[in-house]
Amino acid sequence: MAHAPASRRRFLSTGLTGAAAIWVPKPVHGYTAAEVRAAIADVGISKWDLDTPALCVDLDAFERNIAALQARVTRNGIAARPHAKTHKTAAIARRQLEAGAIGICTAKLSEAEALFREGIEPICMTTGNLAPGKIRRAMQLRKANRHFIQAVDEPGNARDLSDAAREAGVTADVVIDVAVGTRTGVPAGDDALALARLVETLPHLRLRGLLAYDGGAQHVDGFAARKARALSGLAAAAATREAMVRAGLNTEIFSGGGTGTYSVDHLTPGFTDVQAGSYVFMDMQYLAIGQEDGAPVYGDFTPSLTVVATVMNNRFPNRLTTDAGAKALTLNIPRAGVVGEPGMDYNAGSDEFGVITFTEAARSYRIGDRIEMIVPHCDPVVNLYDQIYAIRNDRVEAVWPVTARGKSQ
Amino acid sequence: MAHAPASRRRFLSTGLTGAAAIWVPKPVHGYTAAEVRAAIADVGISKWDLDTPALCVDLDAFERNIAALQARVTRNGIAARPHAKTHKTAAIARRQLEAGAIGICTAKLSEAEALFREGIEPICMTTGNLAPGKIRRAMQLRKANRHFIQAVDEPGNARDLSDAAREAGVTADVVIDVAVGTRTGVPAGDDALALARLVETLPHLRLRGLLAYDGGAQHVDGFAARKARALSGLAAAAATREAMVRAGLNTEIFSGGGTGTYSVDHLTPGFTDVQAGSYVFMDMQYLAIGQEDGAPVYGDFTPSLTVVATVMNNRFPNRLTTDAGAKALTLNIPRAGVVGEPGMDYNAGSDEFGVITFTEAARSYRIGDRIEMIVPHCDPVVNLYDQIYAIRNDRVEAVWPVTARGKSQ
Repeated sequence: MAHAPASRRRFLSTGLTGAAAIWVPKPVHGYTAAEVRAAIADVGISKWDLDTPALCVDLDAFERNIAALQARVTRNGIAARPHAKTHKTAAIARRQLEAGAIGICTAKLSEAEALFREGIEPICMTTGNLAPGKIRRAMQLRKANRHFIQAVDEPGNARDLSDAAREAGVTADVVIDVAVGTRTGVPAGDDALALARLVETLPHLRLRGLLAYDGGAQHVDGFAARKARALSGLAAAAATREAMVRAGLNTEIFSGGGTGTYSVDHLTPGFTDVQAGSYVFMDMQYLAIGQEDGAPVYGDFTPSLTVVATVMNNRFPNRLTTDAGAKALTLNIPRAGVVGEPGMDYNAGSDEFGVITFTEAARSYRIGDRIEMIVPHCDPVVNLYDQIYAIRNDRVEAVWPVTARGKSQ
Repeated sequence: MAHAPASRRRFLSTGLTGAAAIWVPKPVHGYTAAEVRAAIADVGISKWDLDTPALCVDLDAFERNIAALQARVTRNGIAARPHAKTHKTAAIARRQLEAGAIGICTAKLSEAEALFREGIEPICMTTGNLAPGKIRRAMQLRKANRHFIQAVDEPGNARDLSDAAREAGVTADVVIDVAVGTRTGVPAGDDALALARLVETLPHLRLRGLLAYDGGAQHVDGFAARKARALSGLAAAAATREAMVRAGLNTEIFSGGGTGTYSVDHLTPGFTDVQAGSYVFMDMQYLAIGQEDGAPVYGDFTPSLTVVATVMNNRFPNRLTTDAGAKALTLNIPRAGVVGEPGMDYNAGSDEFGVITFTEAARSYRIGDRIEMIVPHCDPVVNLYDQIYAIRNDRVEAVWPVTARGKSQ
């Protein structure tokens, strides 16, 4: 959707108009996170009164999204194991677990360590650790947290992990990362089966099952095509799982899927749980993938994550400058969506500033006014911020530290 | 250069081969920043032995860059006031000041506050503060730091600033941000002159001069075109400065320019200092702008900033997966340059993983091997990391906290 035509962009933005009902045009103070933390118990602070750029999550939409995914996968006879790479935030992981998730996933070890330090226990790390230092840290984490599960995708790595588990005095819970595509993972079929057998025989590892994540399927445009891709993408992993079953190997976990395929992943035989991440927030990329009923905007989940910015320049006709550029939004394509302004094109191509061009706008903007954007792609944006302001009815209800912000190691 | 043809990319990468002489193919430990900090005094740690992705600066190249810019602008009769938005790092600002810079610039107030807390005093904030809370904080900063200079680009904002200065019991040093293009700044000519007069008359402001930054000129492809653009871009601001001189207004500061134009900015009459930022690090964007002698690779400065990553997957021919994706490199276009591997194309399109494709490689890569990239665009990449490893001869010499990391407000 990077090359979605203007008409598609316009349609997407139109679909977002509903969220923009409230506007507070008074001069704003611009409270910092520290000021909000100090004041929040005593006085209500409006999201329009935050220092900008500010990363905000609308709690009503966010809670609906968590409940909606949980209800749907439960109805489909599988479970949710949301991927925390999206939010990196202990407060959010906790809400997902309270809603019924059987665990969370992390992509990186440092992410898992940070979330565990904040009390999150059932963690499945979906990538292997390769360096000796990292393998050792993973087993220290396992020692402190018996609910930690580690992916492996390579025989040498499985042996190293078993050695590190022995050193740490633990038996590590392990899942086989089965490749879908070429990115990571052991190839499905004989290689994967051999690795599963190896894990089963290694003295300090305990085989729990397999992962098969098809990242490429998540953003396929159009529901029917996406469904077909999801099912065909997992077919080889499903056959591997069956071979594991026949070999008497444990397949209690067969995890994968995401926000784009969560409603069809259960159709893959033996599939146990969905690793969706973005569904809690949504973003312009996911809004564009299309819905089951054929509608162009994917509406299973409601956009809850926004960046509030300040208008820095209104001197030129049909043009605004904001204080939210690449360091506030990461990507420039797909465009951020300006809430309530379907006619605006948001260019975050500069590091510090966003440039809006438009032929028509819902209102006129003064220097200092606030403006709100749906982000292009939620995961890397959250990774830029130290905190997320949790908002209800435009008031700050909580300030959530982004626990694993910057933990890309 | 986002659309540079493959041949150009290849040429750029070839130009980087020299930096890749040393390779340590032994199994690596993967030291975390905390481990490096604890061990650095006792044992040497190789940059190849860091936990990845790791942001590294080669000190020899970095020091050469600082010396080269300082020498050139001094020879041209002007000064350096490097922009700290690029590095956000007190340790680097300190080196720039020690080398002769007359100050540093910051783009955001929170950046200025963070750097001042680490002892950096001569700071010019190149953007106006609009919200009352921010204006007040700026004047608190001015109260603590008499070397703080604040840009303004709007009459109402100048009055608010004067009021806040009075409240803080200070007289604020102010520069007029004169627009080059449409992004920020008061239009050159009458508007700018009127604003300068207003600042001169407001009781708690002290006029110091003007800024005129032409961001669009910095990346113009080809030296001659870039020089012409830089000079024409600043012509209106230069005329404004002359009008200010005639009106008896202070123009001791006439600051602008950047890494792409630092060698021609002195040709603008009255110009006093260059705000270059990226020159300390360089990146794929700046390497592509072309050199004074017509060579396609801009070689005034040497690439010093790299991300070291780990090879996660080598199972497929002509293809590697690394652990450095969008959360480690921000941008996918222009491509990151793989040091020593002119034939490799680096795709950072996925959040957690980089995908390398190639037809030929200088060596073969095993899972766990390290690989090093020149980043697409340095500023937003630095903003992702908590620390920069300062490297000399492949050894970690220091670990520099990125003081203002994430300070986009």
